[in-house]
Amino acid sequence: MYTSRGQLSGSKVFKDPVHRYIYVYDHLVWELINTKEFQRLRRIKQLGTSFLTFHGAEHTRFHHSLGVYEIARQLIDQFHEYPEWDDRNRELLLAAALLHDVGHGPFSHAFEHVFAVRHEVWTERIILGDTEVNKVLSEMGVGFPEEVAAIINKTHPNRLLVNILSSQLDVDRMDYLLRDAHFAGVSYGKFDLERMLRVLRPDEDQVVVKQSGMHTIEDYIMRRYQMYWQVYLHPATRSSDLLLKAVLERAQELYESGYAFEMTPKHFLPIFNHEDMTLEHYLKLDETIVYFYFQEWMDEVDPILADLASRFVNRRLLKYKNFPEANRVRYMDRLRSTMESIGLPTRYYLLEDQLSQLPYDLYKGHGKYEGIYLQMNDGDRREISEVSMLVQSILNSRQSDEKIYYPEDVLLNLKDYASEKTWMLSTLRGE
Amino acid sequence: MYTSRGQLSGSKVFKDPVHRYIYVYDHLVWELINTKEFQRLRRIKQLGTSFLTFHGAEHTRFHHSLGVYEIARQLIDQFHEYPEWDDRNRELLLAAALLHDVGHGPFSHAFEHVFAVRHEVWTERIILGDTEVNKVLSEMGVGFPEEVAAIINKTHPNRLLVNILSSQLDVDRMDYLLRDAHFAGVSYGKFDLERMLRVLRPDEDQVVVKQSGMHTIEDYIMRRYQMYWQVYLHPATRSSDLLLKAVLERAQELYESGYAFEMTPKHFLPIFNHEDMTLEHYLKLDETIVYFYFQEWMDEVDPILADLASRFVNRRLLKYKNFPEANRVRYMDRLRSTMESIGLPTRYYLLEDQLSQLPYDLYKGHGKYEGIYLQMNDGDRREISEVSMLVQSILNSRQSDEKIYYPEDVLLNLKDYASEKTWMLSTLRGE
Amino acid sequence: MYTSRGQLSGSKVFKDPVHRYIYVYDHLVWELINTKEFQRLRRIKQLGTSFLTFHGAEHTRFHHSLGVYEIARQLIDQFHEYPEWDDRNRELLLAAALLHDVGHGPFSHAFEHVFAVRHEVWTERIILGDTEVNKVLSEMGVGFPEEVAAIINKTHPNRLLVNILSSQLDVDRMDYLLRDAHFAGVSYGKFDLERMLRVLRPDEDQVVVKQSGMHTIEDYIMRRYQMYWQVYLHPATRSSDLLLKAVLERAQELYESGYAFEMTPKHFLPIFNHEDMTLEHYLKLDETIVYFYFQEWMDEVDPILADLASRFVNRRLLKYKNFPEANRVRYMDRLRSTMESIGLPTRYYLLEDQLSQLPYDLYKGHGKYEGIYLQMNDGDRREISEVSMLVQSILNSRQSDEKIYYPEDVLLNLKDYASEKTWMLSTLRGE
Amino acid sequence: MYTSRGQLSGSKVFKDPVHRYIYVYDHLVWELINTKEFQRLRRIKQLGTSFLTFHGAEHTRFHHSLGVYEIARQLIDQFHEYPEWDDRNRELLLAAALLHDVGHGPFSHAFEHVFAVRHEVWTERIILGDTEVNKVLSEMGVGFPEEVAAIINKTHPNRLLVNILSSQLDVDRMDYLLRDAHFAGVSYGKFDLERMLRVLRPDEDQVVVKQSGMHTIEDYIMRRYQMYWQVYLHPATRSSDLLLKAVLERAQELYESGYAFEMTPKHFLPIFNHEDMTLEHYLKLDETIVYFYFQEWMDEVDPILADLASRFVNRRLLKYKNFPEANRVRYMDRLRSTMESIGLPTRYYLLEDQLSQLPYDLYKGHGKYEGIYLQMNDGDRREISEVSMLVQSILNSRQSDEKIYYPEDVLLNLKDYASEKTWMLSTLRGE
Repeated sequence: MYTSRGQLSGSKVFKDPVHRYIYVYDHLVWELINTKEFQRLRRIKQLGTSFLTFHGAEHTRFHHSLGVYEIARQLIDQFHEYPEWDDRNRELLLAAALLHDVGHGPFSHAFEHVFAVRHEVWTERIILGDTEVNKVLSEMGVGFPEEVAAIINKTHPNRLLVNILSSQLDVDRMDYLLRDAHFAGVSYGKFDLERMLRVLRPDEDQVVVKQSGMHTIEDYIMRRYQMYWQVYLHPATRSSDLLLKAVLERAQELYESGYAFEMTPKHFLPIFNHEDMTLEHYLKLDETIVYFYFQEWMDEVDPILADLASRFVNRRLLKYKNFPEANRVRYMDRLRSTMESIGLPTRYYLLEDQLSQLPYDLYKGHGKYEGIYLQMNDGDRREISEVSMLVQSILNSRQSDEKIYYPEDVLLNLKDYASEKTWMLSTLRGE
Repeated sequence: MYTSRGQLSGSKVFKDPVHRYIYVYDHLVWELINTKEFQRLRRIKQLGTSFLTFHGAEHTRFHHSLGVYEIARQLIDQFHEYPEWDDRNRELLLAAALLHDVGHGPFSHAFEHVFAVRHEVWTERIILGDTEVNKVLSEMGVGFPEEVAAIINKTHPNRLLVNILSSQLDVDRMDYLLRDAHFAGVSYGKFDLERMLRVLRPDEDQVVVKQSGMHTIEDYIMRRYQMYWQVYLHPATRSSDLLLKAVLERAQELYESGYAFEMTPKHFLPIFNHEDMTLEHYLKLDETIVYFYFQEWMDEVDPILADLASRFVNRRLLKYKNFPEANRVRYMDRLRSTMESIGLPTRYYLLEDQLSQLPYDLYKGHGKYEGIYLQMNDGDRREISEVSMLVQSILNSRQSDEKIYYPEDVLLNLKDYASEKTWMLSTLRGE
Repeated sequence: MYTSRGQLSGSKVFKDPVHRYIYVYDHLVWELINTKEFQRLRRIKQLGTSFLTFHGAEHTRFHHSLGVYEIARQLIDQFHEYPEWDDRNRELLLAAALLHDVGHGPFSHAFEHVFAVRHEVWTERIILGDTEVNKVLSEMGVGFPEEVAAIINKTHPNRLLVNILSSQLDVDRMDYLLRDAHFAGVSYGKFDLERMLRVLRPDEDQVVVKQSGMHTIEDYIMRRYQMYWQVYLHPATRSSDLLLKAVLERAQELYESGYAFEMTPKHFLPIFNHEDMTLEHYLKLDETIVYFYFQEWMDEVDPILADLASRFVNRRLLKYKNFPEANRVRYMDRLRSTMESIGLPTRYYLLEDQLSQLPYDLYKGHGKYEGIYLQMNDGDRREISEVSMLVQSILNSRQSDEKIYYPEDVLLNLKDYASEKTWMLSTLRGE
Repeated sequence: MYTSRGQLSGSKVFKDPVHRYIYVYDHLVWELINTKEFQRLRRIKQLGTSFLTFHGAEHTRFHHSLGVYEIARQLIDQFHEYPEWDDRNRELLLAAALLHDVGHGPFSHAFEHVFAVRHEVWTERIILGDTEVNKVLSEMGVGFPEEVAAIINKTHPNRLLVNILSSQLDVDRMDYLLRDAHFAGVSYGKFDLERMLRVLRPDEDQVVVKQSGMHTIEDYIMRRYQMYWQVYLHPATRSSDLLLKAVLERAQELYESGYAFEMTPKHFLPIFNHEDMTLEHYLKLDETIVYFYFQEWMDEVDPILADLASRFVNRRLLKYKNFPEANRVRYMDRLRSTMESIGLPTRYYLLEDQLSQLPYDLYKGHGKYEGIYLQMNDGDRREISEVSMLVQSILNSRQSDEKIYYPEDVLLNLKDYASEKTWMLSTLRGE
């Protein structure tokens, strides 16, 4: 049984730098926005530590969620004649668009990586658990929250709804490309949204592209490619992410070793103890809390934790250099042992990352719902990489980018260890 | 004795959404940016609580300070032939531009209002005290930090330097109008900076405007006028500012009355105790810290503090209505007594603000350095309000905007007090 | 009897630099655009000779007419619930919006001024005469073309339709401010159209503004004010307009005096002869034709016509100086007699213009349909100049701008007349 | 002997929609702009007939030439420390940038194709012949005009100057991509010029790219690719180009057959007679002249010329369909014979074009000065297509687009020939 909460008597409007205005017509949407779980997204940045590289990138998951909702709303308007579209499906999709990221924690990817937390799980718990969000959704009728969750986690039987929210051409990516580009202040991500929406059409269980829209899609994929290389994977951001992980790992290590913190990190205890966290507890963990502890930890007795936290808070990042192609194992072994010999724990001060399988993440051409399908004029449906050489070349390109990160300032300031210092600096800074 | 640190071997570039790029050529500037006191500005938003009204307005004083520096740099480039300009003055001005806001605390205006803190004092302490900023400045020679501070606090004998940083046409306002407009997502503040810089010229101790630039200045003043009414003084932002103050005042009141906080608010203690704060202590007070305590206070035993903090964190603002013009005293007395009678302490739940002297703040036409001077073609110098009827009309306009704020949700949910409820709601919601 | 031509099977889309896209859904609109009378607007620039000052301003009345249509379409969408709106009124308004300028001739204002042509008359003739436009309109039913003409010439009984197309807040001005600003490359005219449309509402026979929209309207009026002073009335454009008129006047004068043109200016003959022009003849008169003759006239025997035409084609404009405030009559008399004494006919080479009654044109606050009405929250309707001091100040300001134009190059190149040369140059160039 | 004309006492500024402002500091540049040959470029659109597809694309070669000059000026500023740069080289390059397109005729490519005119030849004649341009250049010293011409025609010994103006990364392309995108109203061409200029550096005889600029260049090449497919090669524009050629060819054919034109097309006579044209004659041939004749020809007795001219002027373009892949010869033969059988001369009414070798035009990777060279961090210089898979994929892609154009309206209105009509329409409209 479904009971729409109906329309607001007058629409509500949010001023938005990306879409100019975001329009809210439904009671349901308005009430979801005003829940405390949704408002919490104001305290979680959309791009994690990227603001340390692109200072404009302070935008939060709150904006982005509103933006995904707005694009979904526009798309539905355009698909209105589609037979299976009814008010209930419309409200299900709008709610799912708004809530798809509601379970994100602070500095999502780094945090999740260290603590094995999965935001998808928390999104579901927030939608189905004892929350203001659940209360609002439940007023729509029995089963409504469950269906919203199912659209988000891709198990809903209506594949079109799932596809609009999660696919190569989903409303999620459309918003974040535009938004991240706007706030970072780069132009690479600014594709033509209005045109993009116009070349899309629902085709049974999937959103497909009119053949004449092929160049529009190529442009969109190129923008994504550029955003990945120029923004998301910027080496300075990777450096700040690694540093963030190092702080968290050190704190956990200390806790596990019985270290006595000056101030008990109570917000972290369930995580450190590998206990089940309550919803209430999880919802308190936002980026202001993390920053509070990091600042406390700057004054901790443990020199490693204090240094790492201070580096993060005051932005003294590790320098990076490209990973050598030849003799890697020997090279790293020697670096590692030299660093340890001068007292630098390499677990925290000699970091690596490897981006080698990028294209596969950037654009996956496999699986029925994974590709981008063109509706050809002759009625055929073809995956775009079969038609576009450009897309194919992105799929085929195997660019890799592997880097080593190290504290150049420490090496420069070394008083002793003259020969180690010379060797390390010339090795790490030389090209 | 002045020793420039010289130029960087290659310039450094920041991607900036407002100026596209910010260029750093001087060692001095680069090192100032990397001090921890300057990096701290990343944790203080430029527009305080405005992000609760305009969600894009997450930009920080870090961006703004870089932007002010960038405009100063461009202006100097343009004034290069001015005789009294030399490298030292150039570096003094760039440093002052960069550091003019370095003493700001969290949610500046509200915070300063409640606790009688003055950011100007802290800016000076940071520049002259035992800080990384002072260390960098001191390397330029004896007296350098003091001169930078003097430019910022307007006591420096070189009036032109003072004027560039603090006047009706200063580089500070130029940046914040453009930046606030960009991040809030409104177009009102976007004047033509490139043209503005071109109509300005140094004239002895002051920046003046070529006569042909009059319409450019009119446009700039109009943009400011619009930004004030549409952004800075938006009633929802005033409501969130009042709420913020209420939280802080309640916490202080509780502390003074001997209330036992669950968690000692150690970061606030010097303030609560009206003690002198150390620099180190002050520098820890950023917005992440404030948010940490507010979230703790949501669970406090005191229902008023808990409610106010929760309202702020979860954005349940007080509603507003225009102040009645007739019978104000009686009206407010009755409202106040009715609210108290149902147990709502009006000190925290019936708030007022009055904006009546705005034009004076918005544009002051008094004092030698206060006006905007046109360099007329005939050699005369005239204050713009003598020449432009538009500017004059802004000066003369006495728009006032007085509002009352109250917790509509509490009234709506009242179970008892039927007649009081009816009377208050009809009084406060009726127009 | 009204028969809609119905909707196109798929919408047509024009890429537009101002509105991004212009959408056509109605057969009627599509067919009107494809008439030769409408296509002719591609050969008439929107801003006459302004492109000689702002080189970007090459945009034509074709764009502008599409833009006015597009804004009307969006406005109607927003007013859809208005009771008296039906499909017929909608199509009447869209056609009127599209065709409101269809009678414009080349370089409208200058041309009309010299030859006493009125574009309003020709608009009506095109709509009601034997044209492709009339054929398309007539298919909508008897009386349809007449009603479209009546909306344009403001005699239609449905005042709301008239008001949308012709008033202080009409769709015509909205498009041209945005479009002229975009193509000229200035930012002054870029008001927030989306918000403007949202604060408007139909109220019986008129479009009014919600009280909360006051600042939006102030902003719009300020943009207009800026566009007038910075673009429309730019002295260089006034100089090119005067030159254009001088060419046309000289040609007419020669023709009337029996001068034998090298090539008979057949396109101008009805005008030169003060005869009635046929529609067919009028429709041939576009700016490419005028340019053809001007280039021919550069080689005419008459030195004045040849010089004036060559000045216009090769952009050698007359210089300008401000009109002196004191002793005008004597000043001009002496200038005139000196110029004539050296053989320069002052009718063509000493020109004046006076812009003194501007505010009245810029914003007229008189007459029922002339003002901008705010719908106050208390139900009242008030003209904006009663409420806004800014608007009032624009109404009251009596800025005037009077200039003299003269051929500085001729004076500079004078070989003889040493004393006259010296006197004139020092008089005209001195400030 | 070189004598700079020196700097203007105050700079001159053009408002430009693309670069915001164009700055002129040199007497030389200012005087070149004011020559009649340069002013003539105002009457030649940058994109020929594209405005019939993208109505915003009314911009002229005048804008573009100023824009190329402006980018060259900025680039020189950035390369200032380059040893071989001196004032003379600077002024040579600025003049060459400004004048590189000065010989273009009306609707360049179509016109040149029909009449075997080459704008390069006329550019040289204007620079070296008896023109105002030559007079201004000659004042710089003996040999100056010849060197400017040599930079433009790529024979100048200073390869760096040649390379800046003519190469894969030349200032010409940079301006036109940005400008065409802006005026057409599409976003595809808007690459980041400021960043592009920053990754370029002079390296002996060539402009190369810092390795870290690779993604910037990829982005730029993608924008070009998009502009080609979405704007320059838009099928509607190809249709209007073919129509333009058809008009010109028909006029020439008639002239050669002795046809008596109503009005002698005197501007075309040297061309029709295959005579050498004088400079004076050529300079008269601009787009207003062509439009004048086309409008005259609409009333010619010859029905083919009248119809073709009217189609062009009133924008009744030929429809297009994709060329069939199978049985082309038979297919076209049958179409041609059927059309001829109903009286449609297929030379003018059944047109074809084939774009099959595009990638080679779009990006040529051959020849020393043809590629784009990356300056690798290790000192190497590598052509970008060896490093970037994306660029390679564009080089390798062999997209072709072949179309047939035909007058659908004529077929639809056929009264007789029922079976031919049916067959042709079903053949040409069916997919």
